[in-house]
Amino acid sequence: MGLTNLHALSATDAARLIRDGVISSEELVQACLARVRETDARVQAWAFLDPEYALAQARSADEVRQSGQPVGSLHGVPVGIKDIIDTADMPTENGSVLCAGRTPSRDAAVVARLRAAGVVIMGKTVTAEFATRAPGKTRNPHNPAHTPGGSSSGSAAAVAAGMVPVALGSQTGGSTVRPASFCGVYGLKPTHGLVSRHGMFRLSRTLDHVGLFARTIEDLALLLEELAGGDERDPDSRPRARVPYRDVAGEAPPLPPMFAFVRTALWDRVDVDAKEAFAELCGHLGERVETVELSEAADEASEWHRVIMEAEMAANLSREWETGRARLSESLRARLERGREVRALDYLRALARVPELDASFAELFAQRYDAILTPAAPGTAPEGLGSTGDPAFCTLWTLCGMPALSVPLMQGVNGLPLGVQLVGPRHGDARLLRTARWLVGHVASR
Amino acid sequence: MGLTNLHALSATDAARLIRDGVISSEELVQACLARVRETDARVQAWAFLDPEYALAQARSADEVRQSGQPVGSLHGVPVGIKDIIDTADMPTENGSVLCAGRTPSRDAAVVARLRAAGVVIMGKTVTAEFATRAPGKTRNPHNPAHTPGGSSSGSAAAVAAGMVPVALGSQTGGSTVRPASFCGVYGLKPTHGLVSRHGMFRLSRTLDHVGLFARTIEDLALLLEELAGGDERDPDSRPRARVPYRDVAGEAPPLPPMFAFVRTALWDRVDVDAKEAFAELCGHLGERVETVELSEAADEASEWHRVIMEAEMAANLSREWETGRARLSESLRARLERGREVRALDYLRALARVPELDASFAELFAQRYDAILTPAAPGTAPEGLGSTGDPAFCTLWTLCGMPALSVPLMQGVNGLPLGVQLVGPRHGDARLLRTARWLVGHVASR
Repeated sequence: MGLTNLHALSATDAARLIRDGVISSEELVQACLARVRETDARVQAWAFLDPEYALAQARSADEVRQSGQPVGSLHGVPVGIKDIIDTADMPTENGSVLCAGRTPSRDAAVVARLRAAGVVIMGKTVTAEFATRAPGKTRNPHNPAHTPGGSSSGSAAAVAAGMVPVALGSQTGGSTVRPASFCGVYGLKPTHGLVSRHGMFRLSRTLDHVGLFARTIEDLALLLEELAGGDERDPDSRPRARVPYRDVAGEAPPLPPMFAFVRTALWDRVDVDAKEAFAELCGHLGERVETVELSEAADEASEWHRVIMEAEMAANLSREWETGRARLSESLRARLERGREVRALDYLRALARVPELDASFAELFAQRYDAILTPAAPGTAPEGLGSTGDPAFCTLWTLCGMPALSVPLMQGVNGLPLGVQLVGPRHGDARLLRTARWLVGHVASR
Repeated sequence: MGLTNLHALSATDAARLIRDGVISSEELVQACLARVRETDARVQAWAFLDPEYALAQARSADEVRQSGQPVGSLHGVPVGIKDIIDTADMPTENGSVLCAGRTPSRDAAVVARLRAAGVVIMGKTVTAEFATRAPGKTRNPHNPAHTPGGSSSGSAAAVAAGMVPVALGSQTGGSTVRPASFCGVYGLKPTHGLVSRHGMFRLSRTLDHVGLFARTIEDLALLLEELAGGDERDPDSRPRARVPYRDVAGEAPPLPPMFAFVRTALWDRVDVDAKEAFAELCGHLGERVETVELSEAADEASEWHRVIMEAEMAANLSREWETGRARLSESLRARLERGREVRALDYLRALARVPELDASFAELFAQRYDAILTPAAPGTAPEGLGSTGDPAFCTLWTLCGMPALSVPLMQGVNGLPLGVQLVGPRHGDARLLRTARWLVGHVASR
């Protein structure tokens, strides 16, 4: 491989080549920075990127390796971090003018874990305003007239454009799975509570998740292996046994997996193009897929999600509301206004409905299916930069805290990528990755 | 000891005598039933008590022991269970006509744990309506014209009257510490989440705790050793290392403990009699006690507690509200009406204030003090049965989930008991019991 193509390496491969002394972290970061120079004027994925500082981290990683010290699983590999995730050495502005110049003094839990694994923090990626809907400057790398999706717009676009092999984002509605689908990369929202959110902007304790972007399933497994783990500072995190995500994701399933194709109550919103792509995929899966109708409770879930999200947003952004609401986007202001009027009774009732929904899914998986197969979005990335697209196909899985993954398997007639969303049972993250790998292999064998 | 006094045994002593074959469980239960016959017409502690069934359990415990099988730490010891805690073999009516005849099919987690330790479930003790304020039939064993306190009225009174050595209750406001103070027994509300609430009526996830009643500290430690432990079915329970509560509680402190005397913003409500008793106690403690003023946040805590409790009550009792509100007490109806109007914003803000309050207490304990010493109630049990008394002195500690213990150390001029409340840091339950034992010994040595 010529040094000019280093930016196209997966994180797994790059880390191995660095560990083996075939390439240096500095060479890799130089290649990624070159890619930034080539593409970012068009894509605009970064909220903060200091090339010199990234290179300094890379050189320091190279020195550690050359000194013969043991190195982590991501040693020398550059990573993009969504600009709602705190970094001690870079600003974190949450996509809002209200946080302009904000420089946290500590790393978020996920950043600290990645640094321990040896990464180079490349920079901070563009987020929609407070990880909600009002778009940042980022454009879709496949066509700059189209949205990259959001709110993790910069992370999805940077990985898709080859500026970094992997990046972190977040998901409270559909902020990881949707941009991954629109940008044609893998986007994983792991099980709720599996990855600590300490040091990440809190929009909704109930719904916030850290999101992972990569160009290979192996890289998602590698990231998850470093990021998963209990953290007392995240109230929804529990101590759990370590899972060998890479080993499990790399295995062949003992039996070919069964998929439950779930169209959801929103199927009418799916565009004709995407419906055809799903029909083709299901045809190809043959008896490995069955169409499953969800309970009526699932149809109401988007309303519960809205009540919970808006109520928690209103509480978590109450200081911004008090002191700077004129500088919030109109759409966010309207949502906060609604959120401020939600009754605790309705909020708590919505919360109380989730466990029964969870139980119904647990049963579905226990019965027969390895994964749910469902749209990640109603179609490819819409034209225009005024909206980040429709998150509705993600909210049910976010509400239930189930692991959800966008797999870049399809393409629209407009040439833009279109993801397939796979969903697994809570804490079935490793097996979901294994199932996804089987699916990608199966489709490739057509 | 004559068999007629067996009812006065502590659970620890009774279990040892049964284990050693000195007495049988049947003899012990007979003695307790005799005590029920003597006193309960006056006290009315029981919502359900079938003497034959209690004796049958005792005989079965005796058979197990005689067969030479290993026995649990409470083998053959009768226990009273508050009538909001489910039992598979007895009704659980939550102190409301709306639940008349309700017979759950499963034991609550705490009941299952006690059965595993070998107990005889003596019966179900009277609770105020849905563990709130409207009193049941129970009277104070020290003077039947006075309230026993509530809502765990029957458990406190039954232990005080010698009808059972130990009993379980609950606390969401002051439902364990207050009746323990009024009835002159020990009442412990352990750290929030330490004892599973699965199978107990849920009034407020945030504030509900299981409560423990006993006549000795040793018995509280014994109960807690059996009851503490992780339970995935309680969303606030975490797996934790086992703590040897009995060993720790039985040790002498390495140094004489330091107490922080906290009068709280409610000190004006404390009656003259109780103020004098506290002055005397503090005088006796000398340099082992210092008066500590709490932050202003602590003064607001009762309002946060009210908002959280009323909002969660309204949600948890929404079915009862829909289908039977005419059969709720007027006072509960009024609270539910208020609770139904609480905004999620105010509810979530109240919740969000708790961690800073927690941190301020953690600092207080880390600095200098072993326990907070504070009133359990504004005075001895008030006359009359229309109210269970003022829970205000308990709400702050309940809100923070800190372990709180009423120690029956004082007496009013009316001859009624008056508890001293000791509060420790979260998960400092074992040390709190040790500190309480030191205090009791110190006062006895006057």
